[in-house]
Amino acid sequence: MRFENQAGGRAAIAGIGATEFSKDSGRSEMRLAVEAVKAALDDAGLTPADVDGMCAFSMENNPEIEVHRALGGTALRWFSRTHYGGGAACATIHQAATAIAAGAADVVVCYRAMNERSWQRFGAGVQGRPTQPVAESVHFSWYAPMGLLTPASWVAMSAQRYMHETGATSEDFGRVSVADRKHAATNPAAWFYQQPITLEDHQRSRWIVEPLHLLDCCQESDGAVAVVLTSVERARDLRQRPAVVRASAQGAGFEQQMMTSFYREDMTGLPEMGLVARQLFATAGIGPGDVQTAIIYDHFTPFVLVQLEEFGFCKRGEAKDFVKDGNIELGGGLPINTNGGQLGEAYIHGMNGVAEAVRQIRGEAVNQVDAVEHVLVTAGTGVPTSGIVLGQP
Amino acid sequence: MRFENQAGGRAAIAGIGATEFSKDSGRSEMRLAVEAVKAALDDAGLTPADVDGMCAFSMENNPEIEVHRALGGTALRWFSRTHYGGGAACATIHQAATAIAAGAADVVVCYRAMNERSWQRFGAGVQGRPTQPVAESVHFSWYAPMGLLTPASWVAMSAQRYMHETGATSEDFGRVSVADRKHAATNPAAWFYQQPITLEDHQRSRWIVEPLHLLDCCQESDGAVAVVLTSVERARDLRQRPAVVRASAQGAGFEQQMMTSFYREDMTGLPEMGLVARQLFATAGIGPGDVQTAIIYDHFTPFVLVQLEEFGFCKRGEAKDFVKDGNIELGGGLPINTNGGQLGEAYIHGMNGVAEAVRQIRGEAVNQVDAVEHVLVTAGTGVPTSGIVLGQP
Repeated sequence: MRFENQAGGRAAIAGIGATEFSKDSGRSEMRLAVEAVKAALDDAGLTPADVDGMCAFSMENNPEIEVHRALGGTALRWFSRTHYGGGAACATIHQAATAIAAGAADVVVCYRAMNERSWQRFGAGVQGRPTQPVAESVHFSWYAPMGLLTPASWVAMSAQRYMHETGATSEDFGRVSVADRKHAATNPAAWFYQQPITLEDHQRSRWIVEPLHLLDCCQESDGAVAVVLTSVERARDLRQRPAVVRASAQGAGFEQQMMTSFYREDMTGLPEMGLVARQLFATAGIGPGDVQTAIIYDHFTPFVLVQLEEFGFCKRGEAKDFVKDGNIELGGGLPINTNGGQLGEAYIHGMNGVAEAVRQIRGEAVNQVDAVEHVLVTAGTGVPTSGIVLGQP
Repeated sequence: MRFENQAGGRAAIAGIGATEFSKDSGRSEMRLAVEAVKAALDDAGLTPADVDGMCAFSMENNPEIEVHRALGGTALRWFSRTHYGGGAACATIHQAATAIAAGAADVVVCYRAMNERSWQRFGAGVQGRPTQPVAESVHFSWYAPMGLLTPASWVAMSAQRYMHETGATSEDFGRVSVADRKHAATNPAAWFYQQPITLEDHQRSRWIVEPLHLLDCCQESDGAVAVVLTSVERARDLRQRPAVVRASAQGAGFEQQMMTSFYREDMTGLPEMGLVARQLFATAGIGPGDVQTAIIYDHFTPFVLVQLEEFGFCKRGEAKDFVKDGNIELGGGLPINTNGGQLGEAYIHGMNGVAEAVRQIRGEAVNQVDAVEHVLVTAGTGVPTSGIVLGQP
């Protein structure tokens, strides 16, 4: 399998937009989507009539044509979706960048809008899902009778094994929460603005599913985030400094299931994320040492450690030490989730992390990292996933 | 808006596969998918391990990873879906061709598998759909109280207006059915093999929704179809003569809704298909006169006439004469749906038409057209849609 692709370096994120992040938005998901897309276009200095492509999650409830029409758009010539929940976050950028590289679209909007807290709580898992004779449901029918009904329970299976194999502890997972909440504490857009936590807070928080405490689990949030991409050339003439998509990729690994890849030889890795990592580095022509800050998908803290290993920021089994040494906090070797991540800012299915990466490239983040050349962003873990590397123009 | 893209001429369809077409497959949609994909890979001389990309409909019930894993595949680095029902048929090819052109995947499988007759009948429309506060459902809430509950009813609205504006008659629609069934009659894979109809049969068939007779409506079918794409260079070394994707495109028009674009200035056209047409011809560098045979999406006959006009095979309002003159039957100026189409062969959401186009390029169709250089294939009508032009290597 080849790892590099030719879409890298051809497209740039020219605009970002978001609603406020809340637990009850008080309005429709459609309105959230339109507000975020409008904000992203305004940020770029583009109009709805400029948009000829849209990329979204298969889980998105707001069809491309509805968002586009509500904004006053005219016509679309590219629209794609990506399946597998939060794994789609960076895939929207990958699809957009690929379409732009091939000339199949000129201006592409990627968006995610959801009343995920007030309307449909993902944390509830498959408990309320009717049984259907389709492949995805059949899998869960093997696990549900054992009590594996929620995302936390599925991740706990892998986390327990990871602890056994590597010696990582609950405190090591907790250090991710502490870092995220530290960064959120200085981000006025974050739900947990001015509410940092200590490792003791983490340890005292109640069990959700052992070995996961409450504070190992991301928030459930209402809100929307949108980004707008165009060619690097066109982006140079627009309002903001372009965040060049130096690389983008998707990955699904061997024996991949949707959150429940329990029958693999080894449950302590995320081979699909490793596949994304190899593609990103090959396409961008860089290595882990060239990344100054990263948005590491953090729906549950254990998978943050695994991702640090899959991307080669540290060796297998050594993420616990990497984290313990303070690397992931502002001022460390690889500050992650400088917006507060999905534990601290909001859970917008990974799209708020893409926006934060753009701010880091622009030099406009509230927790700005010095001399940022490359920002890595990853998408959902435990599922087929995706990632991007943004770089300076 | 630009019309051409650079993906044209870069990818080719190297293999096709299908199950039998029936009204009750007697097995799961998952199994249908796997059978069709396996057949397509065998046809190409490729193995599941060669596959690194998969494109599907958002309506597909068989996730890419499940089909891939059941076949024994290893990893994927491109997976995308397209929304809007049958409008996705050629979009799967567009997404695959774009990914291949950008080097984001090397071998991409596109597939559609459904027990659409025995399990979920699309013809029932939105009658059984629970009301949800999402954009798509909100639209239907305006039309459902007026009895507009089914696809036939939505198409009938446009067809009635088209008849009023152009003078087309039910007989003109019927000539599409007659041509499709004539072609199906000599196709052993067709459900209506050896069962041609006359225009009188069409006229005598019962009303579904005026002005649509039963024989204006496509079948409901169980079955699966898959195609496999790779680069033109690689395809040349494989088992079959490559069907080069000379052009591929998607389109959504102004004031586009999902089957119910009733508030447009003019209800007698399909501007989204016109947008697809302009892109296909611009990308392939050809015009309607360069197309020897076409697969024109035929879920309902009236939109076949409209498409002939949108693609410039005849002038606005003159499709009735084009059809009356025998152009669309084998031996005519533009034989369409030589497999029998979705009225005659099966309704596999447009994907069986893609496979027939490949056979026409190979010279292996049961109703082979002479000296085929280019075959046009269109996707679902009344929805955001797509199209491809296949050509000789």
